[in-house]
Amino acid sequence: MPSISNRATHAYASPIRKLSPFANRAKAAGKQVFHLNIGQPDLLTPRSAITRVQTSNLDVIAYAPAEGIPSYRRRLVSYYQSHNIELTVDQILVTIGASEAIFFSLLSCLNPGEELIVPEPFYAIYNGFAQIAGVKIVPITCSLDASFALPEIADFEKCMSPCTKAVLICNPNNPTGCVYPPAKLADLAAFVKKHNLFLFVDEVYREFCYDDQVFFSALNLPGLEEHVVVFDSVSKRFSLCGARVGAAVSRNAAVLASIVRFARLRLSAPSLGQMLAEAALEEPADYLIATKAAYRERRDLVFDRLSKMPGVKTYLPKGAFYCFAALPLADADHFCQWLLEEFSWEGKTVMLAPGNGFYASPHLGKSEVRIAFVLNLEDLNLAMDCLENALRVYSEK
Amino acid sequence: MPSISNRATHAYASPIRKLSPFANRAKAAGKQVFHLNIGQPDLLTPRSAITRVQTSNLDVIAYAPAEGIPSYRRRLVSYYQSHNIELTVDQILVTIGASEAIFFSLLSCLNPGEELIVPEPFYAIYNGFAQIAGVKIVPITCSLDASFALPEIADFEKCMSPCTKAVLICNPNNPTGCVYPPAKLADLAAFVKKHNLFLFVDEVYREFCYDDQVFFSALNLPGLEEHVVVFDSVSKRFSLCGARVGAAVSRNAAVLASIVRFARLRLSAPSLGQMLAEAALEEPADYLIATKAAYRERRDLVFDRLSKMPGVKTYLPKGAFYCFAALPLADADHFCQWLLEEFSWEGKTVMLAPGNGFYASPHLGKSEVRIAFVLNLEDLNLAMDCLENALRVYSEK
Repeated sequence: MPSISNRATHAYASPIRKLSPFANRAKAAGKQVFHLNIGQPDLLTPRSAITRVQTSNLDVIAYAPAEGIPSYRRRLVSYYQSHNIELTVDQILVTIGASEAIFFSLLSCLNPGEELIVPEPFYAIYNGFAQIAGVKIVPITCSLDASFALPEIADFEKCMSPCTKAVLICNPNNPTGCVYPPAKLADLAAFVKKHNLFLFVDEVYREFCYDDQVFFSALNLPGLEEHVVVFDSVSKRFSLCGARVGAAVSRNAAVLASIVRFARLRLSAPSLGQMLAEAALEEPADYLIATKAAYRERRDLVFDRLSKMPGVKTYLPKGAFYCFAALPLADADHFCQWLLEEFSWEGKTVMLAPGNGFYASPHLGKSEVRIAFVLNLEDLNLAMDCLENALRVYSEK
Repeated sequence: MPSISNRATHAYASPIRKLSPFANRAKAAGKQVFHLNIGQPDLLTPRSAITRVQTSNLDVIAYAPAEGIPSYRRRLVSYYQSHNIELTVDQILVTIGASEAIFFSLLSCLNPGEELIVPEPFYAIYNGFAQIAGVKIVPITCSLDASFALPEIADFEKCMSPCTKAVLICNPNNPTGCVYPPAKLADLAAFVKKHNLFLFVDEVYREFCYDDQVFFSALNLPGLEEHVVVFDSVSKRFSLCGARVGAAVSRNAAVLASIVRFARLRLSAPSLGQMLAEAALEEPADYLIATKAAYRERRDLVFDRLSKMPGVKTYLPKGAFYCFAALPLADADHFCQWLLEEFSWEGKTVMLAPGNGFYASPHLGKSEVRIAFVLNLEDLNLAMDCLENALRVYSEK
């Protein structure tokens, strides 16, 4: 029997999905599982988007152009304009989710062995794509005590090596909920420019900034036109996770040409997904206003509940829809699996994403978990009941 | 300005899509372009599949499980059963097109630097994914004079090195139209087993075997259960190219576990695509019978027309829907671009895929083109008129 590759043996296991088999078994055994492990919103997809697909005259579900459907790309130009970001159609490439934008950008900008500086904890998937691309993630650790604020430029300077080629941030941040202020981004821009690096910015949570936070896109950093590549997605914005439609956005023509070359290998992003996304972008602003209000309420509930749990360290996320909390236990990986395999409270349990997988530093995040507040208030309350009781039972073991 | 990576600079440009910008310009200038460059069928997607999506109660377009939607995977078990292939749900993983099945299988089974033996010409996309995976394709050249029959095992033996890890074939073959007889496959199986290799078989054209050809799946090769990984897709079978739904099928549990780990990074294949595919599989057999009959007629027309063109060397494809023909000219790449940029016949022209990109050997296929017979008979006839006239005009230049 031939053996699988070493890279498969050591392949990065996503903390978001790796416990799915345990969740499936729990559900098969009759337990109700609250999924706070994954950013899968329960909010309804815009009705007009579904209606568009359901009433269009569809004869052949054909390949789209590798770059994306022209009318959708034009619609994206208007969307970015509504955020005061001026782009041309050519600067926007449609990808299969933000994941593919990330992967193709890594391939396009970094050679194997080159380095990417990423503040940690970070969206776990970066680890996996960096591994496939043979790129080394050099982490800068952010601390929960500072609400995971962007590190000082001096810390970025310490990460520089002759192999450094890019910086990657996520703003608003998954998994920390941090929103980076314009002044901080300007400092980072100066650093990137000084060292002639690429700046990758994952802005899929652009719409979700709470309280007094104002979102500032890296695409509007002056003088950084050739450096910035933004990853985007309609998944969270419009509850369109299953559409698998994202984008890579840049003003660097060489990067775009390279991404297109890779995109031609997979021929096309999903046609119906692009149709859904195009229609969703025509939705009145009310949809996103209501969506944001719903997440803010949920955030307040989760923060409030976590704050009252003995020994849980947390903070108030300013954006996105995650809270990255430290639990009073040594091994969150074990705890998360135990929640699915052994624990139940009134026939219910909760699935969380263990924190360790959101770091590149091997020993960090072992007590931490990512909590996605993507359920309605009632379910979130029940999920928090589960967590509260689980922490008590687990500590008594 | 930071520079793109060397691997991007040297990234493989797909012959199927690389001339798209020229086609777009030709169309913008008012020319009608017959697309024989890409396997995009004009046949209608099964009506029941579209109706399923258009009448289902859709509220949230949610992520599917990384492995695929359970009901679709169960339906696939029945589909393979109808081809006398016995599988369990766990042995079928849903991927984003066959492309992703290819890529994840390469990552799962081969380390960078390891070698993959592939009869050439081969589906061009393999080159690109092998490059990304850092895998070396070792080609065995098949000849047009022998209708691109599978090479002798002695030729495979000559390709062996200490780095050989797998053999990849496509059956029925894209781009050659060859269908491999069971006896040839049994010989190849013995070779694969002797050297403890993986056998990757791209079977996306399974349904399209003409005349007396009988399709034999590598999944039914006895004793090869741990060696075989099959790539599949609903794109061609059901005119569902834009659905982006394929599959990786194997009985090797370690390979499957590895593919799932990679699949979790991109979270999900498209949800609506899987819904379309599931409904299409419930279509009565008539649909595929009619589809196959349509392609056979088209093949006959294309073969007949090509046979009569002076200096064109061709053969009768036995499967799939491509003909790989040698033209009486030195540089098919230039000719194909010229067809789009300079030629027109009664306001029309034809887009073909240059042959060179379907080889790993750098100097082969320069006079050859791949012709996808995916249009109706009338359009195919007009496209052949264009080609015939273009060859005359080009030779007179």
